[in-house]
Amino acid sequence: MKHLTGGVCAPEGFTASGVHCGIRKNKLKKDLALIYSDVECATAAVYTLNKVKAAPVYVTMENLEFGISQAIICNSGNANACAPDGNENARRTCDVLADALHIHKRDVVVGSTGVIGERLNVEAIEKGIPALIKGLSKNGSGDAAEAIMTTDTTKKEIAVEIFIGKKRVKIGAIAKGSGMIHPNMGTMLSFVTTDCAITQEMLQKALSESARKSYNRVSIDGDTSTNDMCTVMASGLAGNDLIEWQDENYEAFFEGLHYVNTYLSRELARDGEGATKLLTCTVKRARAEESAERIAKSVISSSLVKAAMFGSDANWGRVLCAMGYSKAPFRPEYVDIDFSSAAGTIDVCKDGAGLLFDEALAKKILSEREVTIGIDLKEGDAEASAWGCDLTYDYVKINGDYRT
Amino acid sequence: MKHLTGGVCAPEGFTASGVHCGIRKNKLKKDLALIYSDVECATAAVYTLNKVKAAPVYVTMENLEFGISQAIICNSGNANACAPDGNENARRTCDVLADALHIHKRDVVVGSTGVIGERLNVEAIEKGIPALIKGLSKNGSGDAAEAIMTTDTTKKEIAVEIFIGKKRVKIGAIAKGSGMIHPNMGTMLSFVTTDCAITQEMLQKALSESARKSYNRVSIDGDTSTNDMCTVMASGLAGNDLIEWQDENYEAFFEGLHYVNTYLSRELARDGEGATKLLTCTVKRARAEESAERIAKSVISSSLVKAAMFGSDANWGRVLCAMGYSKAPFRPEYVDIDFSSAAGTIDVCKDGAGLLFDEALAKKILSEREVTIGIDLKEGDAEASAWGCDLTYDYVKINGDYRT
Repeated sequence: MKHLTGGVCAPEGFTASGVHCGIRKNKLKKDLALIYSDVECATAAVYTLNKVKAAPVYVTMENLEFGISQAIICNSGNANACAPDGNENARRTCDVLADALHIHKRDVVVGSTGVIGERLNVEAIEKGIPALIKGLSKNGSGDAAEAIMTTDTTKKEIAVEIFIGKKRVKIGAIAKGSGMIHPNMGTMLSFVTTDCAITQEMLQKALSESARKSYNRVSIDGDTSTNDMCTVMASGLAGNDLIEWQDENYEAFFEGLHYVNTYLSRELARDGEGATKLLTCTVKRARAEESAERIAKSVISSSLVKAAMFGSDANWGRVLCAMGYSKAPFRPEYVDIDFSSAAGTIDVCKDGAGLLFDEALAKKILSEREVTIGIDLKEGDAEASAWGCDLTYDYVKINGDYRT
Repeated sequence: MKHLTGGVCAPEGFTASGVHCGIRKNKLKKDLALIYSDVECATAAVYTLNKVKAAPVYVTMENLEFGISQAIICNSGNANACAPDGNENARRTCDVLADALHIHKRDVVVGSTGVIGERLNVEAIEKGIPALIKGLSKNGSGDAAEAIMTTDTTKKEIAVEIFIGKKRVKIGAIAKGSGMIHPNMGTMLSFVTTDCAITQEMLQKALSESARKSYNRVSIDGDTSTNDMCTVMASGLAGNDLIEWQDENYEAFFEGLHYVNTYLSRELARDGEGATKLLTCTVKRARAEESAERIAKSVISSSLVKAAMFGSDANWGRVLCAMGYSKAPFRPEYVDIDFSSAAGTIDVCKDGAGLLFDEALAKKILSEREVTIGIDLKEGDAEASAWGCDLTYDYVKINGDYRT
């Protein structure tokens, strides 16, 4: 896949910006992001399945009733979840922005991320909007990516190009992690842009299918946020034939979108709170993809597996244990397990029982920054991967006193 | 409830012992426990629901086919799970013990706890059995409790007396934690003895009902072990009228048994790996007990809630968030939350939204060794509690390098 610079601004028609408006105390930290499209965009979205949803999630759901948007505004430093006047403040943010941009009030996606339960300083957002709009530029993706970060240590940004027929189509995105993240219930914040011409229906189909196999296969700490949201805005300015069916053009677009989402999912896992390494669990030869997925997610969600990986300890029994409570059907007596990384591969379990292995080599393999736990079920031909990170002292430190 | 000394030996007919037989390298650590009854006992059991079960779990299930046992043997230091010759070694342990005790081969409950995937040193067990039997005494409960400890920092032991009609009936127990523990899928190791005269059917009914509301409401790290097991042996030597129905005698027995199981559940949570405090989550005014239970378990299982409790940080938003992904039906806008401990009570959330509260007082309350998270759903009259512990640096340390 060919990577481009420019993040969410790489596709035609999009500009972005990020500023400090005053929600965060630290003036050096940007806390308000804007992504703007010159034209109305077909827009798809997936939301957290947490029963307790933040106000901006509800407001965005309402605004996207007809699948159209033209701007995304998102603050960090406050989740506007379970907060006084949450709905009013999320709506007011949309209204003020829409007025200032001269766009339709309903064409705004609003997101928030940060502490739950405290009133959103919507006055700061209002005051910040003029500078935010003034700052819009084709170079603004990095600022926007920075402005949505919470405990992230790196900003997450990507852009790629694909071809639909002979037309060059671009897809860009920014995302943020890095705690309260758990698969199969929602996603984290991720804003994708594209200039692809595609109907809202097909865009939603592509996003839903891709999110299931990307964001929803990440777990950092087993907690599903109240604020998760992933949107894709499609400006249609690439000039390709409109994608209306699940044809080869749809497949080409899906491939690009899924590449972007998978890339971001791995980056989110790599930058999980306190993480020192990216864990991938790959399950192969399962009877069904769903079984492989359940097992992979159970393994990368296990606190004991995560802590063992932090210690570079080849404690494969915990892997088999986590498989056992995944509720996926499999035959324990068929299972092979190996660990691999840039330093090599080592087999540790065959047919459900331990192998004698070189502990020094295992330690070397597990000491790398990217480690893969390979599981072979030897039952069928389905497979799935999931991504996570290790459990470290820093995770405890970050979350022992997050609010203060 | 009147507490007695003597642990599992308090009820009539039981003796116990614990020795070092050589499974552990450290000769000062006991690693083999025996509980023996003078007579055959009606025996009930519940087992881990992990699909990957250790060999001793399968062998015990088989031995208890008719619900009768006379001895329990349990080693620590090795789980005999996913290990070469696991079944053979678990059976051989039972056979050698039965021969030495002159009891029926099937009358043995066998348990193991420790590292997964390594061959059990059954030769050490065989050699240790004579000393183990020689050591049997009415004072042996403490030694047995010690011999089943792994990462536990304290031994768990209790005995109580109840009255069935005019007969004094005793119930004793030992248990061990303290990692790989998660509710609703199994229990940890817990061995209960009683001299109550009760049919195996009623004993199983009492245990299953009690375990659901005690052991299965504990979570330490979200991982369900391959080796969990709880058994109750009833010698019948108390001389009470045989309990055959769910009558008032059954209720009296149930009350005693449930008291013992609940006590041990709290002790297991308190001594969770790395824990500095015991967390209780109490959910009241739910529409159904099952909803209250799901919510309470979701809250005490949340890594983010647990880390916040470690930091004595009143981050109640994480409590509401964990409620939201519990899959229990409730109305977020009705929810009240408070934190309480020996230092007082503080309301932090009312009708789903944050209250202004005294942060210094909250910190003081959360700094105690026992903290209760109180949730009021204001929807019905069902309630449930669950127990857990905080997530600490020491949990990561203990599990980053458990095997070596």
